[in-house]
Amino acid sequence: MRTSEPFIESNIDALNRVRQTSPLVQCITNSVVVNFTANALLAIGAAPAMVDIIGEAGPFATVASGLLINLGTPTPEQRDAMIEAQAGAAAGSTPWVLDPVAIGSLPVRTPLAHRLRELRPSVVRGNASEIIALSGSGAGGRGVDALDSVEAALPAARSLAESTGGVVAVSGAVDLLTDGIRVVRIANGDPMLTRITGGGCALGAVMAAFLAADDDHLAATVAAVTVYTIAAELAAAQSAGPGTFGVAFLDALASIDGEHVAARARIS
Amino acid sequence: MRTSEPFIESNIDALNRVRQTSPLVQCITNSVVVNFTANALLAIGAAPAMVDIIGEAGPFATVASGLLINLGTPTPEQRDAMIEAQAGAAAGSTPWVLDPVAIGSLPVRTPLAHRLRELRPSVVRGNASEIIALSGSGAGGRGVDALDSVEAALPAARSLAESTGGVVAVSGAVDLLTDGIRVVRIANGDPMLTRITGGGCALGAVMAAFLAADDDHLAATVAAVTVYTIAAELAAAQSAGPGTFGVAFLDALASIDGEHVAARARIS
Amino acid sequence: MRTSEPFIESNIDALNRVRQTSPLVQCITNSVVVNFTANALLAIGAAPAMVDIIGEAGPFATVASGLLINLGTPTPEQRDAMIEAQAGAAAGSTPWVLDPVAIGSLPVRTPLAHRLRELRPSVVRGNASEIIALSGSGAGGRGVDALDSVEAALPAARSLAESTGGVVAVSGAVDLLTDGIRVVRIANGDPMLTRITGGGCALGAVMAAFLAADDDHLAATVAAVTVYTIAAELAAAQSAGPGTFGVAFLDALASIDGEHVAARARIS
Repeated sequence: MRTSEPFIESNIDALNRVRQTSPLVQCITNSVVVNFTANALLAIGAAPAMVDIIGEAGPFATVASGLLINLGTPTPEQRDAMIEAQAGAAAGSTPWVLDPVAIGSLPVRTPLAHRLRELRPSVVRGNASEIIALSGSGAGGRGVDALDSVEAALPAARSLAESTGGVVAVSGAVDLLTDGIRVVRIANGDPMLTRITGGGCALGAVMAAFLAADDDHLAATVAAVTVYTIAAELAAAQSAGPGTFGVAFLDALASIDGEHVAARARIS
Repeated sequence: MRTSEPFIESNIDALNRVRQTSPLVQCITNSVVVNFTANALLAIGAAPAMVDIIGEAGPFATVASGLLINLGTPTPEQRDAMIEAQAGAAAGSTPWVLDPVAIGSLPVRTPLAHRLRELRPSVVRGNASEIIALSGSGAGGRGVDALDSVEAALPAARSLAESTGGVVAVSGAVDLLTDGIRVVRIANGDPMLTRITGGGCALGAVMAAFLAADDDHLAATVAAVTVYTIAAELAAAQSAGPGTFGVAFLDALASIDGEHVAARARIS
Repeated sequence: MRTSEPFIESNIDALNRVRQTSPLVQCITNSVVVNFTANALLAIGAAPAMVDIIGEAGPFATVASGLLINLGTPTPEQRDAMIEAQAGAAAGSTPWVLDPVAIGSLPVRTPLAHRLRELRPSVVRGNASEIIALSGSGAGGRGVDALDSVEAALPAARSLAESTGGVVAVSGAVDLLTDGIRVVRIANGDPMLTRITGGGCALGAVMAAFLAADDDHLAATVAAVTVYTIAAELAAAQSAGPGTFGVAFLDALASIDGEHVAARARIS
């Protein structure tokens, strides 16, 4: 397991690579956050492409740099496009992120999330309740709220990571990331991220951008979370409420640099 | 009929209850405003959940605190989900708001709105043309513009409220609300609300949040309109145009308190 | 061919007419930019109506002032609605804009764009790669990025304009517009427009608003591009990043006037 300093260096390297290479990130995501997600990707330096229809989702995923599958508002068209895109990603060795939004008791998305989990996502990102539900060990939350604590989700996150062979990232006041063996905690961020819609969903897309920039998927995910949550801190410092925060956050994603990361990262 | 002072007190109580209880508001709404609506709900202190697919909309509505059905861009999937959600809301005694966007001559949404009206929404919210069209006494508007005046819609609003047994809220420079017997006028707000998309649609969602906080649905709707339109005044005072207004409005929804309401409410 | 000074006059006239007449612009557009597009139309003084379902798209297009068909996220429902809307526009002599987003190799939207091209759009708007692909002379881009230069697209733009009998507008650092005979270049704008999603897509909607205000479709398109790109300059001058730019841009669309246009237009 790497210590905090090497992560800081790898975080900065990953941020720079995202900006230099402008990875093409395909998103199949929910209608609520699709605009904010595209703007977050553009701000960080990636190129968003919301290709989410049957017949295009698969071919596009084979050539994309990264793929996000987010279950927030899964229409029938999107559900089939998700399966098609995952197959395309597998064929093209495209890393992909699964965000099992609000699974647990909802009867359409929950089995879909379990089916996608079997297809071994590079990263699963969710709140504690969603991760517990996906690992098969709990009942899920109510919408995007987590009723369970992040630390309570650690056994579920480990078990899930072991079964997918990928990374699992649990969002909360302290984010917890694991590849089943290593466990990383990141204590950056600001509660304002929970006062705007898409604060978590857009992070999934940013993770997909960083996966394209680092073959070590745990390091890539750590970099995505660190950069994203420090940008939230920078934005919160100059916000009067959730409206100005959302705007300042996009500015911060565009302006954050290695010095911000080195000065603020709280990784253990 | 309560006078203005009791309404002010009940408005402040309702606002505080929304913030304390964070009602879970399910929205089946149009693609244009879904992001702004979720952000408005978060800003006021509620928890948005845009569960709008067949198979999930119904079960979710039975446990949600409130439900919005907005006909802005009614895809076939959403139309069936609306019917399903209404049944779920009825089963769970969940209060619900119907926003019959742009009905009148458009041939899909107009009969759907009439069908939903028969199912007795707790609140119908619309502009004068939409309310007149839904009551069966006029031709409707052109999109979201109202060609009719709010006062001209009073007979239609009364008649509609009598037939649904709920509240009818007509948006305009002066908002008019009635439960068929009582009539309340609220002279707060700012024209800027009409210069951003979703200014009316998000109000429907905020009404659903307030319905969960007060069993007197007229009082709850008055509180929602008063808080929302005073927030618009606060935001307009510091805006340079519609872009900054939209941002400041979300900040104002998050920061508005009882003193703002007491000082500014213009209810008769 | 008119020279720059007459264009400036016609630009200002067109802007004033849009604000006076508030043209009703129907948009069938992608889920990513639909909110920003509606807000851009409202800011410039037009009335947006996102009527994009089967059964309504056609009738609405016969009475709308202008129509945008944007292929960004073309669901099956939208694809049929596009064909229906085009027929309605033809029946009602409603001018319409085609934005063939990301065509080239994507197998659903590419043939759809070619089919719509045959129906003679009043304006085709795209980046160089999209215009080259639609004219049949190239391979297309990767998503919304243009791999080809604007000037390299001139022969394709001319040929496309000849085949549609309309205007073709190629977006880039210098925008290039042609009706097959006349060629106009507009050197206004700011790179920030490419750092937010919808910077190009919303321009297509604004073009539809201006088409309703000037029967000379080349002049109308020149006016739309000039006003839009100068608004971007005004916004960029007071932005700290893409978040604040998006907000300031809506303010600028609402406040831009004839003096800004006269002082800044760079048309040749």
